[in-house]
Amino acid sequence: MNAKAILESVLYAEDLKSTEKFYTEVLGLEIYSKDSYHIFFKLEHSMLLIFDKEHTKQQDTLPQHGTESYGHLAFAMLESEIQKWKSHLNKLQVKIEKELRWENGAYSIYFRDPAGNSIELVTPDLWEFNYYSGSTSLIK
Amino acid sequence: MNAKAILESVLYAEDLKSTEKFYTEVLGLEIYSKDSYHIFFKLEHSMLLIFDKEHTKQQDTLPQHGTESYGHLAFAMLESEIQKWKSHLNKLQVKIEKELRWENGAYSIYFRDPAGNSIELVTPDLWEFNYYSGSTSLIK
Repeated sequence: MNAKAILESVLYAEDLKSTEKFYTEVLGLEIYSKDSYHIFFKLEHSMLLIFDKEHTKQQDTLPQHGTESYGHLAFAMLESEIQKWKSHLNKLQVKIEKELRWENGAYSIYFRDPAGNSIELVTPDLWEFNYYSGSTSLIK
Repeated sequence: MNAKAILESVLYAEDLKSTEKFYTEVLGLEIYSKDSYHIFFKLEHSMLLIFDKEHTKQQDTLPQHGTESYGHLAFAMLESEIQKWKSHLNKLQVKIEKELRWENGAYSIYFRDPAGNSIELVTPDLWEFNYYSGSTSLIK
């Protein structure tokens, strides 16, 4: 048996309001649904689930999870978008914590979400993923 | 600007050896690369990065992250694979913590990795993702 693809990735946040603003305005993600304790974003191949940190610890209808301190997620960015992303982050006063040109030519930009999670934009060639021809969004 | 896809999801583990065994044998993932403190798995559209919990706290070359307690990730499973996955988990003595048929017809199986992270196999219809016709692996 082989799991083929990750369908849900999770981050935790104390303040869902600022977190929603960050992921919609800074990263431009689309909300699929939300309630008082969750925000669910739908991306190309998978979901980003944001859980309220305190509530998640207390729920007991599903198996427990919920991490302290800071998680990490990386989102795909095209090489041709690097400067646009930097201007965009600058304009929204999101501090870039680090930028890095990797040995294999890939490029990363690191910053933080309001909960302190380490968020990265990275060109998919870091992991030898290629964009489908004719699309700037899908990763192969 | 819009981030289109998640390229890296991260979990943390104290014991990378048992964690490697779990993700290769139980979930059937393919190792892309590894070193003493990391295991990197390559899936259809993204990477799963496993970080050594203690080492990650101490490294200072990249922005800090690293969570305590248990994270959560869900992997895609076909409806036609549900029984096969259950038999497979059973055979490998991985305890199923919960199973659930969602209101919209999707199905979830929950269990734990050796680090205690909550791992889920779920049919992508939970989030209205469709499999490409002609493929059992890609999610649209």
